[in-house]
Amino acid sequence: MPLSEQQIADITAARTADSRTLRPTVPALEAMLFHATPVLDHGFLRVIDYMGDDSAVVQAARVSYGRGTRAANEDRGLIRYLMRHRHSTPFEMCEIKYHVKLPIFVARQWIRHRTANVNEYSARYSILDKEFYIPAPEHLAAQSTVNRQGRGDILTGEEAAEVLRLLRADAAQAYDHYAWMLNEGHDDQGPDPARQGLARELARMNLTLNTYTQWYWKTDLHNLFHFLSLRADPHAQYEIRAYAEAMLETVKAWVPASYEAFCDYRLGAATLSAGMLAVVRRRLAGEQVGQAESGLSKREWRELMEMLGLPA
Amino acid sequence: MPLSEQQIADITAARTADSRTLRPTVPALEAMLFHATPVLDHGFLRVIDYMGDDSAVVQAARVSYGRGTRAANEDRGLIRYLMRHRHSTPFEMCEIKYHVKLPIFVARQWIRHRTANVNEYSARYSILDKEFYIPAPEHLAAQSTVNRQGRGDILTGEEAAEVLRLLRADAAQAYDHYAWMLNEGHDDQGPDPARQGLARELARMNLTLNTYTQWYWKTDLHNLFHFLSLRADPHAQYEIRAYAEAMLETVKAWVPASYEAFCDYRLGAATLSAGMLAVVRRRLAGEQVGQAESGLSKREWRELMEMLGLPA
Amino acid sequence: MPLSEQQIADITAARTADSRTLRPTVPALEAMLFHATPVLDHGFLRVIDYMGDDSAVVQAARVSYGRGTRAANEDRGLIRYLMRHRHSTPFEMCEIKYHVKLPIFVARQWIRHRTANVNEYSARYSILDKEFYIPAPEHLAAQSTVNRQGRGDILTGEEAAEVLRLLRADAAQAYDHYAWMLNEGHDDQGPDPARQGLARELARMNLTLNTYTQWYWKTDLHNLFHFLSLRADPHAQYEIRAYAEAMLETVKAWVPASYEAFCDYRLGAATLSAGMLAVVRRRLAGEQVGQAESGLSKREWRELMEMLGLPA
Amino acid sequence: MPLSEQQIADITAARTADSRTLRPTVPALEAMLFHATPVLDHGFLRVIDYMGDDSAVVQAARVSYGRGTRAANEDRGLIRYLMRHRHSTPFEMCEIKYHVKLPIFVARQWIRHRTANVNEYSARYSILDKEFYIPAPEHLAAQSTVNRQGRGDILTGEEAAEVLRLLRADAAQAYDHYAWMLNEGHDDQGPDPARQGLARELARMNLTLNTYTQWYWKTDLHNLFHFLSLRADPHAQYEIRAYAEAMLETVKAWVPASYEAFCDYRLGAATLSAGMLAVVRRRLAGEQVGQAESGLSKREWRELMEMLGLPA
Repeated sequence: MPLSEQQIADITAARTADSRTLRPTVPALEAMLFHATPVLDHGFLRVIDYMGDDSAVVQAARVSYGRGTRAANEDRGLIRYLMRHRHSTPFEMCEIKYHVKLPIFVARQWIRHRTANVNEYSARYSILDKEFYIPAPEHLAAQSTVNRQGRGDILTGEEAAEVLRLLRADAAQAYDHYAWMLNEGHDDQGPDPARQGLARELARMNLTLNTYTQWYWKTDLHNLFHFLSLRADPHAQYEIRAYAEAMLETVKAWVPASYEAFCDYRLGAATLSAGMLAVVRRRLAGEQVGQAESGLSKREWRELMEMLGLPA
Repeated sequence: MPLSEQQIADITAARTADSRTLRPTVPALEAMLFHATPVLDHGFLRVIDYMGDDSAVVQAARVSYGRGTRAANEDRGLIRYLMRHRHSTPFEMCEIKYHVKLPIFVARQWIRHRTANVNEYSARYSILDKEFYIPAPEHLAAQSTVNRQGRGDILTGEEAAEVLRLLRADAAQAYDHYAWMLNEGHDDQGPDPARQGLARELARMNLTLNTYTQWYWKTDLHNLFHFLSLRADPHAQYEIRAYAEAMLETVKAWVPASYEAFCDYRLGAATLSAGMLAVVRRRLAGEQVGQAESGLSKREWRELMEMLGLPA
Repeated sequence: MPLSEQQIADITAARTADSRTLRPTVPALEAMLFHATPVLDHGFLRVIDYMGDDSAVVQAARVSYGRGTRAANEDRGLIRYLMRHRHSTPFEMCEIKYHVKLPIFVARQWIRHRTANVNEYSARYSILDKEFYIPAPEHLAAQSTVNRQGRGDILTGEEAAEVLRLLRADAAQAYDHYAWMLNEGHDDQGPDPARQGLARELARMNLTLNTYTQWYWKTDLHNLFHFLSLRADPHAQYEIRAYAEAMLETVKAWVPASYEAFCDYRLGAATLSAGMLAVVRRRLAGEQVGQAESGLSKREWRELMEMLGLPA
Repeated sequence: MPLSEQQIADITAARTADSRTLRPTVPALEAMLFHATPVLDHGFLRVIDYMGDDSAVVQAARVSYGRGTRAANEDRGLIRYLMRHRHSTPFEMCEIKYHVKLPIFVARQWIRHRTANVNEYSARYSILDKEFYIPAPEHLAAQSTVNRQGRGDILTGEEAAEVLRLLRADAAQAYDHYAWMLNEGHDDQGPDPARQGLARELARMNLTLNTYTQWYWKTDLHNLFHFLSLRADPHAQYEIRAYAEAMLETVKAWVPASYEAFCDYRLGAATLSAGMLAVVRRRLAGEQVGQAESGLSKREWRELMEMLGLPA
C-alpha cells in the first residue's frame, strides 16, 4: 500500500477544509484533489493544486476582461483551432501540481522534461523508505529483437522467477546495508552507540534504482500535453506510461475540451513526411505505388503502411 | 480611465461568482482578484488567478502529505532559511497570473524575462485602442550626465512643454493614419467603400512605441521575485518600476512570509565582492583604509561607500 | 544600404583573421561567416559564430568518444531517424549566433521564442539610427477577407501610394522629433546649449514600430528548427518569413543532413488528426467519403483536401 | 582508469585533425580540448567544443560589428561592470560542451540545473560498464551533527572498513545480477541460449546509484557560472564539487577576464541582508552591537560573524 495511516489521515484532513474562492473552479477535479491514485506496486499520483480551466485558455487567447459570454461550443471550436494550429501559449495559462511517488529509474526519465518545477524528497537530508518497484509478472519482458530500446515477449518459467527473486533480494540487501551505514536505527533496532554513522548524502549511493522516491511536480497545460504526447505513447517505457495514463484521467476531468482536442490532434494524430504525403496523394489518384517506386526507405515505408492500416 | 464601462461590468460580474474549493486560498488576495490597479496614465495591473500560498512553499520544501501542523513561526523560519540560502525551487510551487495594460516600450523590456507565460493582444488580428503613454511632468527627466542609461534632472519650462506637445501630437497623428490605413471605420466614420484597407499586420507598424498594449502574464513566485529584484530596483526605468511596485502590493497580500523574506534578503540586501568584503573586515578591525589602499577601482569604492552609508 | 563603410571595414577585417582549431569546422559556413545578407529594405542577417556540425548531432546521440568512423550514409540515416521520431536533444548540441537588423514590430514577434539568448541594441543607452521599414509595393497587401490574421490582395493605385507616403512621413517626423527631444545633435546640427535634452529611455517612446533595431541572437539547432517551422511557414507574416528564409540558407550550408531531414519531416510534412487519418484510410479502401460522412468540420475538411491536393 | 585504449585512441585522433576557422579561438582551451581530466575514482570531464571568448561577451554587450579595437583593459572593465551589475545576457553569448563520466547519484543532482542541453548514455538502449564510485577513505564522512544535509568527521577504523566493503560488494553483486538478467554475455561468458534475457530498460533498475553513467552536457557561460556558484561552493556535496572544480579550470583557460570577475563578484562575494547591513553600518559607526541588539536570529548572527571573520 503506497500510503501510511498518518498520510491517509493528512489527506482526509486536507479534503475537509474547503474555502470560498473567486477563481475558476472545476468540480470534477476538486473531487479528485489530494486523493492518491495507485500506480505500479507502491507508487501513486495525486493532484495537489491547479490553476485555470478550459475557459481560462479561451480567455487568454482573447486577452479578455471577463470569463466571456460566448456559447460553450464557440469555446470548444476555438480550443480545437488553437490545438490544430499549434497556438500553444493559451494552454500555458493553466497550471497543475502533482505529488508523485515513483521509482528512481522512472524519475530519471521524467526529469528530462525541463519546463516544469520540481521539489524532490532529499536523501541528503532525509532517509528513504524501504520500498522498491518489482514488476508484475505480466510486465517482465525480454529485450525486443527488432527494437534496441523496446520490449519483446513476456519472460516465463524459471527465468522469470529467478529475475524476480534477484530484484527483490538485491534491493532489500542494498537497503539494509544503507540503513546499517546510516546507523540511525532500523528494523526495531536503535543506533549502535559505538558507531558514528555514514553521512546520508553518501549512504544513499548504495540504493538500487528501483527504490521509490517522491516529488512535487508542477507544469503548465501546454508542457503537460507535450509530456503526455511522449510518455502516454505506446513506445514509452511501460513504467512511466503508467503514470502518464493516470495523469490523462486528471486532465480529462480538469479541461475536457482541451483534452478532447489533444486526443484528436496529438495523441491520435499522425505526421506524414513530404515523401509519405506524396505516396498518399498518388495512391488516392489511383496510382499503384509500392516501396520501390515510393522514394521511401524500407523503414519509412513500413511506418507509413502501419499508419494507414495497410499490409506492409 | 483605463477601463471601459463594459470592462468594469465584466469585472464586477466575475467577482460575484464564487465557488467552493479545497485548494489553498488567500482571502487578502481574493479581495484584490480581478480589480484593476491603475498604473501610469492609462495602464493597469490586475490579478486574474493564483495557485498556492506561503504554506505551499513549506509543503513543497518538505514534500509532505498534508498542509502541515507546524507552528506558523516554524514555517516563517523555514521560508527565511530557503530565501537566504537561495533554495529557489519551493518558491516555484506558487504561481500567479496578471492581466496588464502597458505601453509597448515597457512591454519590450518586460518580455526579456523569459521564464513566464504570455498571451499578448494581437495587432495582427485585432485593432489597438487610441491610447498612449504621456509622462506626467514630474517624470519628464533629462538624460543623466553620470549614467549613460539613467535619468537626471526634471525638464521644465518651454522645453518640457514642447516635449509633451510633440509626444502627444506624433502619437495621435500616427494612430489616426493607422486607422485610416485600416479603413475599418474610425472617429464615427465608417469604412470608405472605395478602398480595400491595409492588412492589420502591416498597418500596426505606423504606431509609436508609447501606444498601449495588453497581455496576460503568468509566472511562478521564484521568477516573479527575480523580476521584482530587477524591476522594483531604483535603477530600473520608472515606467516599468511603476508596474513592479503595484505587483509588490499583490505579493505582500498573497504570501506575506515570503514577501518579508524577499524584502530582507533580496530587495534590501547588498552583495559585497571579495575585495569589498576585505575592506569591511579591515575597517572593522580598526584599520584606516581609503580607496588608494583598498585595491578597488574608484567606481567600486563609490558603490561600497554608498552601501555602507559612508561619504565617498 | 544596411551597412556603413566602417561596418563593412570591420567585417572585412574580421574575415581576415583566421586561426587553427581542433573544433568541428564547416567550410561552407565559414565562407558565409560575418557577411551580411540583406533582408527587407534596410535589414540584414549574418552568422557571427557557430558550434558543431552534422557529426556533432550523431556524436551526442551515441555519447561517443570520437568523431566516429561510420560511413556518412549511416550518419544521415541516424539523423533522419532522430528527426522522424522527435528525438530532439541531439540537435540541441549545435549552436549558432546571428547578428540581425530588423524592424521593431518584427523583433516583437521574434522575441516570443523564449529558448534563445538575446542582446539587443539598447535605446536606453544609445541612439537609434534613422532607418525605417517601408514595404515594397508588392508586399503592400490588403487585410484578408477569410483569415483574420492574414493578407489578401495587393493594394494598388492611389490607396497604395497614400499608404506609402504616410508610412514614410510619420516615421520620419517621429524620428526627427525624437532627435530634437534628445538634443544631442542631428542632421549636421549640434545640440542646443539652452536645452537639457530628454532622457534617451524616454525619447525612444516617440519612435514608430517600423524603426530598425538590431540584436545578437543565439540558439541551438533544435530550437532554431522550431522557430523556422513556424516562421518559414506560408502562414507567417511576410516580414519575419524573409528573415527565416535567409536563415534556412545558413542552416543548409551548416548542417546539410539535418537540414534535409528537417525539410522532409517538418517543413514539408503534414499532421493528420485522428479524424483526418480515418478519412484517408476509408478513401484508400475505396470508400466514397464526403465531408458530410467524414465527422470533420467544414474547416477541417477544407484543410484535409488541401493537404491531399484534392478539390474541396 | 576512466578510459579504455580505444577511447584514448579516439581522443588522440580527434586532436590531430585541426582546421582553419574565422571564429574566435582560444589557444589555452584548444590545448585542453578532448583531453579527459580524471574526477573521482573512475569519472572524468572533458571539453568537446566551445563558442566565443571574453571578446564575444564584450561584442554582444555593445552589439558591435567587429571584434573591436578597444584596449584590453577597457574590455576587462566592461566585463567586471556587467558581472557586478548582474547584466547576465552578454555572458549567455558564450557556450561550452562537456563530456562527463559521473556516478548516477551525482547526475541526479546535476540534472536539476535545467537551462542546459543534455544527452545521456541510454541504459534502455545500451549496457552500462561495471564501474562504481567508491569514496576514498578521506571522503568517507559521518553525518554532520549540526547540519542535516552535511558531513561531519571522517569515519575511521572498523566502521570505515565495513562501509567500504559493503559499498563494493553490493554494487558488484547488483551489477553481476544485472548482467545475468540481460543474458548478453558477461565476464568471458556468452549468453545462455536457454534464456531470453530481460529487457535492458528493466534490468537497469537493479543497479546501485554509485554506478557510473556519462553524458554530453552543454550550456552557456551565464548558466555555467550559476551552476558553479552553487556547486563549487563549500556547502555543495564533495562528489559534485569535484566536477565543478575541474570545470573552473576550463573556464579560467577559456575566458580569463570573465573568470576573474566571477571569482570577485560571485564565488568570493557575500550577500548581506538588510538586517546584516544595518549591523555593519552601526559597527563601522563605532557602536557596540551584539546579537541581542542586532534584530538578527542567532543563526543569521552566526552567518554574519563568519562572513566578517569575527568570533561569533
